[in-house]
Amino acid sequence: MIRETNDWLTFKHQFLQIIQLSDGTEGQNRLVYSPNWIAAQSELIGFGQQIGLTSMVDTYGNVYLDLPGKDDQVIAAGSHMDTVVNGGKYDGLYGVLGGLQAIRTLKKQLGTPQHTLRLISFSEEEGSRFNATFTGSKFYALHESAGSLEDGTGWTFDDARQQAVTRLQSLKNVLIKHPSLPKSFTELHIEQGPRLINNHAQIGLVAGIVGQRRWLITIQGESNHAGTTPMNNRHDALQTTVTMISKLAEFAQQIGDGLTFTVGQLNVIPNAANVIPGKTQFTIDARHADNQVLDQFEQAINKTSDQLEDGQITVTTEQYVKDEPATFDATLLSQNEQIVQRLGLTSQVMVSGAGHDSYVMNQVSPTTMIFVPSEGGISHAPNEYTCSADLKAGIEVLMASLQAQAY
Amino acid sequence: MIRETNDWLTFKHQFLQIIQLSDGTEGQNRLVYSPNWIAAQSELIGFGQQIGLTSMVDTYGNVYLDLPGKDDQVIAAGSHMDTVVNGGKYDGLYGVLGGLQAIRTLKKQLGTPQHTLRLISFSEEEGSRFNATFTGSKFYALHESAGSLEDGTGWTFDDARQQAVTRLQSLKNVLIKHPSLPKSFTELHIEQGPRLINNHAQIGLVAGIVGQRRWLITIQGESNHAGTTPMNNRHDALQTTVTMISKLAEFAQQIGDGLTFTVGQLNVIPNAANVIPGKTQFTIDARHADNQVLDQFEQAINKTSDQLEDGQITVTTEQYVKDEPATFDATLLSQNEQIVQRLGLTSQVMVSGAGHDSYVMNQVSPTTMIFVPSEGGISHAPNEYTCSADLKAGIEVLMASLQAQAY
Repeated sequence: MIRETNDWLTFKHQFLQIIQLSDGTEGQNRLVYSPNWIAAQSELIGFGQQIGLTSMVDTYGNVYLDLPGKDDQVIAAGSHMDTVVNGGKYDGLYGVLGGLQAIRTLKKQLGTPQHTLRLISFSEEEGSRFNATFTGSKFYALHESAGSLEDGTGWTFDDARQQAVTRLQSLKNVLIKHPSLPKSFTELHIEQGPRLINNHAQIGLVAGIVGQRRWLITIQGESNHAGTTPMNNRHDALQTTVTMISKLAEFAQQIGDGLTFTVGQLNVIPNAANVIPGKTQFTIDARHADNQVLDQFEQAINKTSDQLEDGQITVTTEQYVKDEPATFDATLLSQNEQIVQRLGLTSQVMVSGAGHDSYVMNQVSPTTMIFVPSEGGISHAPNEYTCSADLKAGIEVLMASLQAQAY
Repeated sequence: MIRETNDWLTFKHQFLQIIQLSDGTEGQNRLVYSPNWIAAQSELIGFGQQIGLTSMVDTYGNVYLDLPGKDDQVIAAGSHMDTVVNGGKYDGLYGVLGGLQAIRTLKKQLGTPQHTLRLISFSEEEGSRFNATFTGSKFYALHESAGSLEDGTGWTFDDARQQAVTRLQSLKNVLIKHPSLPKSFTELHIEQGPRLINNHAQIGLVAGIVGQRRWLITIQGESNHAGTTPMNNRHDALQTTVTMISKLAEFAQQIGDGLTFTVGQLNVIPNAANVIPGKTQFTIDARHADNQVLDQFEQAINKTSDQLEDGQITVTTEQYVKDEPATFDATLLSQNEQIVQRLGLTSQVMVSGAGHDSYVMNQVSPTTMIFVPSEGGISHAPNEYTCSADLKAGIEVLMASLQAQAY
């Protein structure tokens, strides 16, 4: 149905209108509550009103576009409108406009649904302007407020939010409302990794989101002269760091499939060519769908750090992130598997390695996600790209799922 | 002889006068051509003139204090007057004032020597103000000029030099002169490592200075999402770095005694907890008395970097320091060994792991060094400390050596 030329052209046209708001910068820039973001949410409200959807905005700037059904149960789809700094065109926006497209086509072809169909465009997911993520979905689903935050330019979260949301709420025919929770939530999104593209699968059926833990490791040794300190007299914090990372990499390899282990940040002190490092600080990021595997890895970190302490070297581990794994709704997943089969698309069931609004929505409503491939697995970068055929396929799956649920 | 109370008190008094110039700062601060440095070289000229030495200053601010002999051959001793930022009390200054003390005592007890005795206080050795080391001894010995340099505050080397040297050369009875090279040079210095203190040896007889090579290694991989990029799809520059450092540490351990291997500086790009590092840059510092061992280590670096390249990861090695090892004069060394035995001092023959003015002097004159222990092997830090007994012993050995050579 989406193959119909007009519907696809509308999607493409709307997509272009939003991404042109970032003209003049290398990538997409719709940081939450920024002028570009206000313009994009406003355009979206216009797109919804054009096809007769009810438009609502809550006090965090989440936009809701409802196609009222015969009853007041709600089947929702959507994603987020914000981007990272110099982000890609598809992350977030694809799920918003793809969801709108699915509802538009269903309305045109099948009329009023049994349950209300709702598109949600969450205000913020990336955490790129303020030091907080998922503030949109957390406000909608959990009534959780972001707290007192400041961006780098002196704007507080609340000032930026009020200034932006006032603008949206003053648009014609916009209701100021925090609508009730949906019966289900489906998020269409590009994969932010290379598994689909490498496996030549058109659709990723997302069974959940990995649990994620992060630690800050501090190794304290003794700084000394690189030339005059004999090797057996050193307490070299960097050499101990290398040993620790090696051991953990080996352990991660033994665990194998599904565990990611990343040391992304490492600082050496004093960081001079002719001085033995006296101190290092580095981060460990570990993710897996199974909490027990993460427990195992955590034990390995603690054991390794104990082993490396020798009276002269101290190793301190501090866990600063512990996000539980999310398991998405099994019924929706199996329904989507059947849809994909029926449509003759290639697919794979997978666990997302990154967080999404669905992580939050899953805490309050049965939730599922549909991934489409991203060339080279690239995301959060200007060269993020998904071909039209894959974009269309993803919208078709979403539409069939919404149809099965709402009609 | 130095045990004589008056001579030791004079040394202590002069030492205190110079280190008090840095009062109010945590450590010693006599960066070349700074007000403290000018005051210190001026005081030294005064100390020399008080006991009738001829004082000379060249255009780099090196100070020469001569006790003229019956002929014009010169037996020289000395070290440098400058310090690092917040340095210790002994590095450099001990060799200058210890040398002066030796000459003072010899003059008092034995009168005019056969050969001229010369104390040299080099202007600069540490490279702490301008990005160049040994500029004093290189100017004296090799007529090498420092080139156009700037410190962090906008002073050029030449402006700072001229302003400071003019002050010294305008002092009463100071000759403006670049004197001829000596027949021998002896430098008294604290060990900048823990070998003497750990081995309970009072004197280090320095057979040479290690060769030193430094490389800048750049590993280029691919930056990517820490959660969504499967482990077998990563080109993690930091993990490759860890592998490379591990392999080299293993190789260094096999070579064993005498080789030092230090990765002192390591920068990770982009250095964020949730991003796989796309690039690293790090330094390798390797030192050994034998060039062949350094060649072997260099081969290991090149071999390892070749092995780690896999089409997605590139490893670039750039050598930016290659200092040849220095072998000091064998005759002076064995003479000093005999002196130490005669004086009943414990000693060990050793190779210096750090550079000294003697490295430069050795290129033009037979040269030797005498080390005394430094508590904890500490240097270049405010808590650098050598006990009085060890300071005295070092001066005694120097004095006996100068006596044997000049009288």
